[in-house]
Amino acid sequence: MELKNNLRTESGWEIIENSFNEDQLVTTGSNFMIGNGYLGYRGTFEEWEADQYVACIVTDTWDKAEGSRWSELCNVPNGLFTQLYVDGEMLSAFNGETSDYYRALDMRKGLNQRKLRWTSPQGTTCRLEVEKFSSLDNHRLLVMRYNFVAEQTAEFTLLTGIDGRVWSINGEHFVSCETEADDQLIRMKLETGERQTKVVVTEAVKLTGETPLREEIVEEDKRIMRSYTFNLEANQQVCLEKVVAVAHSNELKDPLNVGKAEVTEALNKGYDSLKETHMDRWGSFWHISDIQIGGHSEAQILARFNIYQAYIATPTHDNLPIGARGLSCQVYQGAAFWDQETFNLPMFVYTHPNIAKRLVAYRHDTLDGARRKAQQLGYYGAFYAWTSGKTGDELFPDYFFTDVLSGRPIRNHFNCWQIHISPDVVYGIWLYFEATKDWDFMLGQGAEVLFEVAQFLVSRIHFKKDKNRYEFIRLLGPDEYHENVDNNAYTNYLAKFSLEKAAEIYAQLKLSNPEILSDLMDKTGINPQNVEDWNEIAELIYLPKPDPKTQVIEQFDGYFNLEDVTPEEVRKRLIDPEEYWGWPNGVAIHTQVLKQADVIQLLALTDIFPQEVLKANYEYYEPRTEHGSSLSPSVHALVASKTSHHDEAYRYFEEASTIDLYNASKKVMSGGSFLGGIHTAAAGGVWLIIVEGFAGFKMTRNGVAFKPALPQQWESLSFHLNVRECHISILINKEEISISSRQDNPVELEVEIGGKNSFLKPGAGISAPVTA
Amino acid sequence: MELKNNLRTESGWEIIENSFNEDQLVTTGSNFMIGNGYLGYRGTFEEWEADQYVACIVTDTWDKAEGSRWSELCNVPNGLFTQLYVDGEMLSAFNGETSDYYRALDMRKGLNQRKLRWTSPQGTTCRLEVEKFSSLDNHRLLVMRYNFVAEQTAEFTLLTGIDGRVWSINGEHFVSCETEADDQLIRMKLETGERQTKVVVTEAVKLTGETPLREEIVEEDKRIMRSYTFNLEANQQVCLEKVVAVAHSNELKDPLNVGKAEVTEALNKGYDSLKETHMDRWGSFWHISDIQIGGHSEAQILARFNIYQAYIATPTHDNLPIGARGLSCQVYQGAAFWDQETFNLPMFVYTHPNIAKRLVAYRHDTLDGARRKAQQLGYYGAFYAWTSGKTGDELFPDYFFTDVLSGRPIRNHFNCWQIHISPDVVYGIWLYFEATKDWDFMLGQGAEVLFEVAQFLVSRIHFKKDKNRYEFIRLLGPDEYHENVDNNAYTNYLAKFSLEKAAEIYAQLKLSNPEILSDLMDKTGINPQNVEDWNEIAELIYLPKPDPKTQVIEQFDGYFNLEDVTPEEVRKRLIDPEEYWGWPNGVAIHTQVLKQADVIQLLALTDIFPQEVLKANYEYYEPRTEHGSSLSPSVHALVASKTSHHDEAYRYFEEASTIDLYNASKKVMSGGSFLGGIHTAAAGGVWLIIVEGFAGFKMTRNGVAFKPALPQQWESLSFHLNVRECHISILINKEEISISSRQDNPVELEVEIGGKNSFLKPGAGISAPVTA
Repeated sequence: MELKNNLRTESGWEIIENSFNEDQLVTTGSNFMIGNGYLGYRGTFEEWEADQYVACIVTDTWDKAEGSRWSELCNVPNGLFTQLYVDGEMLSAFNGETSDYYRALDMRKGLNQRKLRWTSPQGTTCRLEVEKFSSLDNHRLLVMRYNFVAEQTAEFTLLTGIDGRVWSINGEHFVSCETEADDQLIRMKLETGERQTKVVVTEAVKLTGETPLREEIVEEDKRIMRSYTFNLEANQQVCLEKVVAVAHSNELKDPLNVGKAEVTEALNKGYDSLKETHMDRWGSFWHISDIQIGGHSEAQILARFNIYQAYIATPTHDNLPIGARGLSCQVYQGAAFWDQETFNLPMFVYTHPNIAKRLVAYRHDTLDGARRKAQQLGYYGAFYAWTSGKTGDELFPDYFFTDVLSGRPIRNHFNCWQIHISPDVVYGIWLYFEATKDWDFMLGQGAEVLFEVAQFLVSRIHFKKDKNRYEFIRLLGPDEYHENVDNNAYTNYLAKFSLEKAAEIYAQLKLSNPEILSDLMDKTGINPQNVEDWNEIAELIYLPKPDPKTQVIEQFDGYFNLEDVTPEEVRKRLIDPEEYWGWPNGVAIHTQVLKQADVIQLLALTDIFPQEVLKANYEYYEPRTEHGSSLSPSVHALVASKTSHHDEAYRYFEEASTIDLYNASKKVMSGGSFLGGIHTAAAGGVWLIIVEGFAGFKMTRNGVAFKPALPQQWESLSFHLNVRECHISILINKEEISISSRQDNPVELEVEIGGKNSFLKPGAGISAPVTA
Repeated sequence: MELKNNLRTESGWEIIENSFNEDQLVTTGSNFMIGNGYLGYRGTFEEWEADQYVACIVTDTWDKAEGSRWSELCNVPNGLFTQLYVDGEMLSAFNGETSDYYRALDMRKGLNQRKLRWTSPQGTTCRLEVEKFSSLDNHRLLVMRYNFVAEQTAEFTLLTGIDGRVWSINGEHFVSCETEADDQLIRMKLETGERQTKVVVTEAVKLTGETPLREEIVEEDKRIMRSYTFNLEANQQVCLEKVVAVAHSNELKDPLNVGKAEVTEALNKGYDSLKETHMDRWGSFWHISDIQIGGHSEAQILARFNIYQAYIATPTHDNLPIGARGLSCQVYQGAAFWDQETFNLPMFVYTHPNIAKRLVAYRHDTLDGARRKAQQLGYYGAFYAWTSGKTGDELFPDYFFTDVLSGRPIRNHFNCWQIHISPDVVYGIWLYFEATKDWDFMLGQGAEVLFEVAQFLVSRIHFKKDKNRYEFIRLLGPDEYHENVDNNAYTNYLAKFSLEKAAEIYAQLKLSNPEILSDLMDKTGINPQNVEDWNEIAELIYLPKPDPKTQVIEQFDGYFNLEDVTPEEVRKRLIDPEEYWGWPNGVAIHTQVLKQADVIQLLALTDIFPQEVLKANYEYYEPRTEHGSSLSPSVHALVASKTSHHDEAYRYFEEASTIDLYNASKKVMSGGSFLGGIHTAAAGGVWLIIVEGFAGFKMTRNGVAFKPALPQQWESLSFHLNVRECHISILINKEEISISSRQDNPVELEVEIGGKNSFLKPGAGISAPVTA
């Protein structure tokens, strides 16, 4: 089936590029990438170099290059680097003639594939077939099979090894780079400047097919390669199996020897065996995570693509964040933002709670960083980093954007005024806790975070005595076009939620685990008076209520008084198209035009407002939203679906799900900064649209509820959930919704469909008609 | 004695221009102006028109021209308009040849004088002598004597009348303009567009000397003139006496007939008689207000010039403000700012309390405007206008400056965040009350203002519960380079002062005037609980204290963390020299560089910090201050003098006192906006420097105190004060300070000099040595 953007699919599992298009080089590098949550390897060609944005981004390698203000993940040397010379001319998409072109990402199996027939400028033809994967079994391994066949007699030189000439957005991280050959292995050993992280890339190969005339090790600046020369005749072929281990000292004490052992072992196992295990792992994942869409192949592939990308962006290790661009590049430093909790976490909470647990545990692990941030800004408790890496210290600099009109840096206050990040973290923890009832987690980690966030909110809030209410002054909500606002609805509601949950857990601990509570109080220095404050603030915090007439909730104090104008009109006021719309003097700040709508975000996350409020707010805010954030479409799709704006819901689904695949976002900023990479939160948002929007799933006190609104473009929708240790499968078609419970589920689940409740026993199924 | 800027003085009372300099046309128009607090008539030449910035600005004529956002005082038709044609060529500074040039402002007598000998391009010579004044006896009258003498035979045509072709900064105010001749009188009747204010300019003349051959009335568009033609021979002369009344319907029910009657009567009295009465009035003023400086003629003339300008800027009528440019032009709309209380009021409080009373009463009269402003911004009580005209409604627009780099308007928050204006008003009232003990004023007007300001502060402040303190969030202090700050030291201290004074007066009223208090409570809706709030806030408001180590008070939360860099360095960062340094992204905002130093301002106004704190703060803030405000030098002079930085004090005195006379400020902005006019607050500040700085005067509980620090450049300093109904004269020389009390003073005054107290009986004198 043909897709847009020069793509097609055959089975609904693979994305195939119809022809090579140099203009899409940045995009395809991201879209065809392979990865496993430890490393992300861009879907570039084997012969490419830094100029073509080849990258292997490795988690937990944060480092700040000299003179940079950014701590970012390292792009490590490319161990799969392979160039093929035919009679001295390099096989290249930019040179000679390519035919029978095939580049694919097989998402079911986690494979990147390339096939082509190439005729050199001199007229010599050969065939190439490459397959590679980043192992889901051993996350440090990159594995490749590189096959070429002569169609005419020619001299072939195969150059394969490790290319250490990496690019890096914010400066060079490696202060040393040593190469060595060791038995069958070659390797590159590097060390970063700031934190002395040792990175070792180890490579081994196995050649089959024709025997080379010559072979040698070639060393150049920051490169070590094997060179094989063959004289081949027509139909003679060479097969290169290549195994690379990427290891570093933040994960391993001895990355050198681990790399050596793992590469040696993997080479012995051989490509097919490694691939088999790898595919099994992907099969297990999809068994739980696949969403099947009947009657719409494009939607099917879009759903899988976004799930695939959301998954490979998610750490395999404890205590690491999901980067806003995953591991697809260094943009956003591999660091987590509030998106992690609000866009990426839910999918894992409801499908792979073990992964979700790693993510919420990360927030506990970085609690000290959040404490430090609070203290540095004159508060206490936990003020989570807007941009959060390994330690949880704030990575976001005071000056982020540059005013393109004056060239002056802009003091953006995302780091110090966007306080909703802390309640967002609590929201995530609560989501996980509600779905899993993981009391051990709450005892050991969650409660401490809840308490410290509550303390932070106390330290940040002000009491308006004459109005007898608490207020948050000088905020930045998710909508970044309006800095410096008061009583941002999203923030105030989420803060109330956080304080209530902290107080609730405190009360529960007091009853059930007084000793643990006592330890926690000692550890944090929190006392019962503090808890009274939480309760008082939760009770008296000012919450902008739906207007009695219009039902619309004001995004922040005074928002309704701002100029009411369309995003299109505001766009016309730009002097330079690259201008930032927000603080301090951008075109949107004195208008009602939003980057993303905070009230819509609030309605998407919470379940406290009646349907007419959802509807009124959607209809008010939607036309005033510019969707300057990639997070915006999925939230709008979700709320549009909940409010029966079906056409708009589907349009926003299409927007959200194609941001990357159809190349709808900017890749390189004017001036040349790389902005490419996968929008990980948008990818997570696609799951939310389908499951929480179209299927109308939500968790209830004792089970689950559904309110399907199947897009008319689709015939059916099926997916799997894992809630409260129960696995259930859901199938929705035009007429009915059927839910089946796995035989080994431990409990009966209460299921609400269209307002009617029933009980689903293990091994049983229920179905109900779908009502409009 | 020669002064700078092409000026000289003879007796120390008059400023004489040495030669006409076209480049100084805007400046001299302001500096040589005459006025009386009802109208300001620029010191321009009689034959000049709008292009030469001739203006007669009349108070209480606020009007907003169609399409403008500014309500401003009107520039009314020029009733002194007079042109002399010699054989058809107009006598002009731009044409022919001028010799024996003399233009002077005689400040003792309130006279503008002009003498010259002029030779026309054809070679005909005559002499001109003009003297004019705006009557201090009848404020509506402008009076002129215009004499010319032929040196050769020639035809002279004298054109004199009313020129209604006025200029106006923010649009045309007059929607109608009628001219008429009525008996001996000619007049122009105008009406403003917004408020239908009727303005009538009535003129009459008396001719003596040679008799005209012909006379006629000439009417042109917006002009009505008398034309007299003479054939004169050498030494024949003509003398024109001219009387003009400027009347308007905001002051008078029948401005037409009042104008008619007053002009007729004045013409009958004749020039010399009118002048005599006028000079007597000036004599009375100077009797109280003159400051005599021995041994330094330049300082002498500077002191008088600034007192003169401060005086003629000050309303003759109740319930009108002192404009920031007085009546010298329309810049700042003739409206009051906080300067009125902090820079202009003190001189009147201590010399002419009757004038001071008018100024403080103005704030009571505009209380409703301040209430409306508070309500419009979501507060209650009295939030005084940043730019305050007749009604006290806010005249300052949301968008004031324009970003010269983008051309976009800047949202300045002077109107809504610069809340110190309300405590400043209280400061002024208290200053007046302390000096006069005018309990009737407090009962009838002052208390209501104090209470309503206290209420506003309650409605604006936030309580930080965990710190048990009240805070002001999101402020703009006097230093306008740092908008959006918290706990601005100046504001917080002044707010505490205001709350304390409100509570103090409440308590006093409760004891002494319970019925009046009860009426006031009914009227304002204030209850005893509110008063408890005032006391609580006054007690718990956060006051940035002197740092224990450095003694420096932080201007606002986080100020010390800003980049510490010099004003010169910051200036280098300008892209365009016209750029605004402040909000939202100007060069100063993230630095410690100040437009004016708020802590220094605080130290100048209050007497609560010990000497070492004054010294430490002066030394910290002075080098970080850019003095972008004309208010800044006088405050720095004052505090420099108090902290024994004598050289700097004198340098700042020179700066403050010469801003206008030596043309140190910008007159016309790039793009052509008129910015000229007298810096009225700087003029008032000069009195403060001399009396509170160099003489070290302050009021004490039972009298007065002095701590002289006579500039080494001066031999003596003498002045007069009027405190608590006592007139005292002060003489300071290098050795001693002598104070004498007038015979008719009602009480004995406690006088503190150098820490030693004595009692000064009516009619007695004391003296004490001056110590270093």
